[in-house]
Amino acid sequence: VAAAPKKWFETFAIRGYVQARYNRLLETNPDLACEQCDRSWGRDGGVSLRRVRIILFGQLHERLYFYIQPDFASTVNGSASLHVGQLRDAYFDVGLDKASTFRVRLGQSKIPYGFENMQSSQNRLPLDRNDALNSALSNERDLGAFLYWAPLRVRKRFSYLVREGLKGSGDYGVLGVGVFNGQTANRPELNNQQHVVARFSYPLVLGRQIIEPGVQAYSGNYVMATDQLSTGVKHSPDRSYLDQRAAATFVLYPQPFGIQTEYNIGRGPEFNPRTNTIETQRLHGGYVLLNYRLRFGPQQLYPFLRVHYYEGGKKHERDARSYSVREAELGAEWQPFTAFELVAMYTLTSRRFEDFQKPDNQQQGGLLRLQAQLNF
Amino acid sequence: VAAAPKKWFETFAIRGYVQARYNRLLETNPDLACEQCDRSWGRDGGVSLRRVRIILFGQLHERLYFYIQPDFASTVNGSASLHVGQLRDAYFDVGLDKASTFRVRLGQSKIPYGFENMQSSQNRLPLDRNDALNSALSNERDLGAFLYWAPLRVRKRFSYLVREGLKGSGDYGVLGVGVFNGQTANRPELNNQQHVVARFSYPLVLGRQIIEPGVQAYSGNYVMATDQLSTGVKHSPDRSYLDQRAAATFVLYPQPFGIQTEYNIGRGPEFNPRTNTIETQRLHGGYVLLNYRLRFGPQQLYPFLRVHYYEGGKKHERDARSYSVREAELGAEWQPFTAFELVAMYTLTSRRFEDFQKPDNQQQGGLLRLQAQLNF
Amino acid sequence: VAAAPKKWFETFAIRGYVQARYNRLLETNPDLACEQCDRSWGRDGGVSLRRVRIILFGQLHERLYFYIQPDFASTVNGSASLHVGQLRDAYFDVGLDKASTFRVRLGQSKIPYGFENMQSSQNRLPLDRNDALNSALSNERDLGAFLYWAPLRVRKRFSYLVREGLKGSGDYGVLGVGVFNGQTANRPELNNQQHVVARFSYPLVLGRQIIEPGVQAYSGNYVMATDQLSTGVKHSPDRSYLDQRAAATFVLYPQPFGIQTEYNIGRGPEFNPRTNTIETQRLHGGYVLLNYRLRFGPQQLYPFLRVHYYEGGKKHERDARSYSVREAELGAEWQPFTAFELVAMYTLTSRRFEDFQKPDNQQQGGLLRLQAQLNF
Repeated sequence: VAAAPKKWFETFAIRGYVQARYNRLLETNPDLACEQCDRSWGRDGGVSLRRVRIILFGQLHERLYFYIQPDFASTVNGSASLHVGQLRDAYFDVGLDKASTFRVRLGQSKIPYGFENMQSSQNRLPLDRNDALNSALSNERDLGAFLYWAPLRVRKRFSYLVREGLKGSGDYGVLGVGVFNGQTANRPELNNQQHVVARFSYPLVLGRQIIEPGVQAYSGNYVMATDQLSTGVKHSPDRSYLDQRAAATFVLYPQPFGIQTEYNIGRGPEFNPRTNTIETQRLHGGYVLLNYRLRFGPQQLYPFLRVHYYEGGKKHERDARSYSVREAELGAEWQPFTAFELVAMYTLTSRRFEDFQKPDNQQQGGLLRLQAQLNF
Repeated sequence: VAAAPKKWFETFAIRGYVQARYNRLLETNPDLACEQCDRSWGRDGGVSLRRVRIILFGQLHERLYFYIQPDFASTVNGSASLHVGQLRDAYFDVGLDKASTFRVRLGQSKIPYGFENMQSSQNRLPLDRNDALNSALSNERDLGAFLYWAPLRVRKRFSYLVREGLKGSGDYGVLGVGVFNGQTANRPELNNQQHVVARFSYPLVLGRQIIEPGVQAYSGNYVMATDQLSTGVKHSPDRSYLDQRAAATFVLYPQPFGIQTEYNIGRGPEFNPRTNTIETQRLHGGYVLLNYRLRFGPQQLYPFLRVHYYEGGKKHERDARSYSVREAELGAEWQPFTAFELVAMYTLTSRRFEDFQKPDNQQQGGLLRLQAQLNF
Repeated sequence: VAAAPKKWFETFAIRGYVQARYNRLLETNPDLACEQCDRSWGRDGGVSLRRVRIILFGQLHERLYFYIQPDFASTVNGSASLHVGQLRDAYFDVGLDKASTFRVRLGQSKIPYGFENMQSSQNRLPLDRNDALNSALSNERDLGAFLYWAPLRVRKRFSYLVREGLKGSGDYGVLGVGVFNGQTANRPELNNQQHVVARFSYPLVLGRQIIEPGVQAYSGNYVMATDQLSTGVKHSPDRSYLDQRAAATFVLYPQPFGIQTEYNIGRGPEFNPRTNTIETQRLHGGYVLLNYRLRFGPQQLYPFLRVHYYEGGKKHERDARSYSVREAELGAEWQPFTAFELVAMYTLTSRRFEDFQKPDNQQQGGLLRLQAQLNF
């Protein structure tokens, strides 16, 4: 007897999550801001939706997996309107063998650079990613083609690390190599060269613990788009800049105590406030995150501490804004049940962020940040 | 035996509706327009999609409900393109007790101000909301945090009033209090103060009839965004204006004859065409809607008559446009089956709507308006 | 015993498709471009997502069908951001009889003009539509009301031609007539007249072959929007231009050898580089597509060859850009399984595309184009 053909809702699934935030409690300096982190920090900030994600995904065939993720908390270039629907991910994985140990990924997806970059915001403990590695890629993503390899046994381990609440990165292979446009997510390509990226990361079982050391690097040329430049700022004739980074990662998964640390160095465009010029400059920075996992029946509690620093530019911000960041965060995530999470986090920070329009801008202070998250 | 875990499609549901319109029949004055009502009124209007809504919603846990509603008939600030996807709602309700008689609502949602504002456009009889109360809030919504209370018995009644075709408002509690940014839906917060709102509304069973009297009020400071101002218009130095309203509501649900009436007074920004200045001015206005419910087997027919007036500004329109509205509408909604509705409505109206660019603009006339609605 | 009410996921379905492309291999002239075809052709192009479609559709009642299709690879007017969600289709069909042999379609949908225009991009063999007929309608769609008629037997044949991989157009009736705004998809109406359209097309069974001859025509006035005009270009005082076309179609469905050919003539706005003026000018053009269907178990392979030419303007592009196109394409579509397709296609082309900003622009050359498509 032939099996009945699958119904549409059995061939793929839909899920999502929503993050609502408030950042103004115990705020000591309303001039503290972080554009890439969260636009509702500081002066005139209010209740905000940081992410409203709807995800369609599924294994359509033994050799084909897809993942489409619009975000309905986006703004688009040139408009003040909030809450526009815009893609984060739209990719498909084509397995080169039946177990998809080798996979080719096409479309817009996360670039395999940085463990915290790859870890979903749905799972990450601190509310925002660290500036040091996240400055590599606005929205962590780009258009490109990638090859991932991982043995089936390790693929299952990657899956386990997310499913069991151990805050894994998801499965970006043991080895990943790729080419991508290099202008970061949702922005048009502006040159004829592709960026290249490679990453190696291996989750090792050591007794009752799992660790995951990793290395990754990318290289390419980034072109400052004209709408990213202030009138009057000086830049290279073709607005093109070397864009290269290398990073090391070490993770001890929280059973119950966890460590996550990354560090990267590189070169990229950065505004120089002394010369009013965007120049290729060195950059470096990293972070250490300590966390602890507590369980009370179905409830979970993850206290955490993260310190991070960054010296360098952010290529995707106005005039490749120059940053010096020193930040410490102490907080906890509480999951009373799987569909709901609350994070409270105190941030103590010193941030210099300077561009042509604000060439002398060093801010210090503290604030309490709150987030409620829905998972469906 | 343990129950099988729920499939994704059993944990939440998707539904939606679409409204297609044509407003040009029997039109006597093509200069009649109403930006907040429907941009396809008058000169150069054609066939239009007023709303294309897709809703994801579900009770994920006895204490957690969510509702995400993008609209795909939106335009975004700064772009002429139609039919962009943009959020209307994205909120979740956290029950403080198991029956969720007390609920905290977080995210972007309707502000509990005005029965007709809260009633879904899917259920409302006239094609657009009355100017008097709807001028309070563009798209009826904002980002904020709210506390709703209603006994379980009344929650069931709110649900019944929608489900049984009685054109209820949905469940915004017997008592609702909240804080919200105050710049209305999908617009960034522009000051450091929150608006506050409170509402009380109770559906009472009187013999075979149900009535619902209610009161509500909000207060805050609204900041005119720079993109809302014409070049040359005068305004307060910080573009900030007092924004306060109070309203009373009375509803007799149509079994078969219904009455719905609301009135509000307040103060808010309003363009003054004599001085070319945006000033805080008094506003007032209200409406009476009479309706009748006829059933023929599965078919339903609701003839209705609404008269409304408004004197005041619309803070979310250019220069806080000044309005004097006198309008009467006579129409009928026909539902041949639940998935489809047709509305025909004749509107006789006198509208003064003046801003810096059109400081002397009084228009009168009539038009026939048609809508076909799909419910899925 | 009464049947259980249908669950939400049994009342309608969700499906979709994604197209990822790369156009830079074997490229001989980076100045070759085609705005309407694919913005990632030529200089500074990279990996791109051409379409990311999510479709909700269903027969809600014997007399009511709906179809909502946002695309998440859109850009909106005035913004450089990619991958914004915007409608392609949002329509519903109301059957005038139980079998819906007569149907009224309301909303935004494809205009019944041109077989290749109506054929889904999910099914079309060449990566982009021919300029000759596709220049009639940006995104093939508009807002309007249409009446379609087809006997039930022919409706089943239309359905069969798509389902069986014969690359049909879908069911736009044997006879279709309609009125529509005329400014093309997702753009506001700009005058008080509607366009009118009519089409006749009949799929005939001849022995083991099926052919489909058809004719179609539309007429109206198109208004150049101010944001489509270069500063300095001359145009008619009201920016309004006659917009009329008529076309003939012949299709032999590929069992296994297929032919598809269309030709159209008409008049419309076109930039005149000698006078720097947008003028109403004659246009004409067409194409011939030869294809062949090969099956190897579940796999399908469709080699194809298309030649097309066009002389005329594109009303929806800057200054009603003037075109002379001569193009030949040789390629193949390979479907290893239903959820996945690969197309490789070599294009040899000569394109003149001139507007006020580029008044002397004739480009020739060749390029290899690649597409991977996911169907879910």
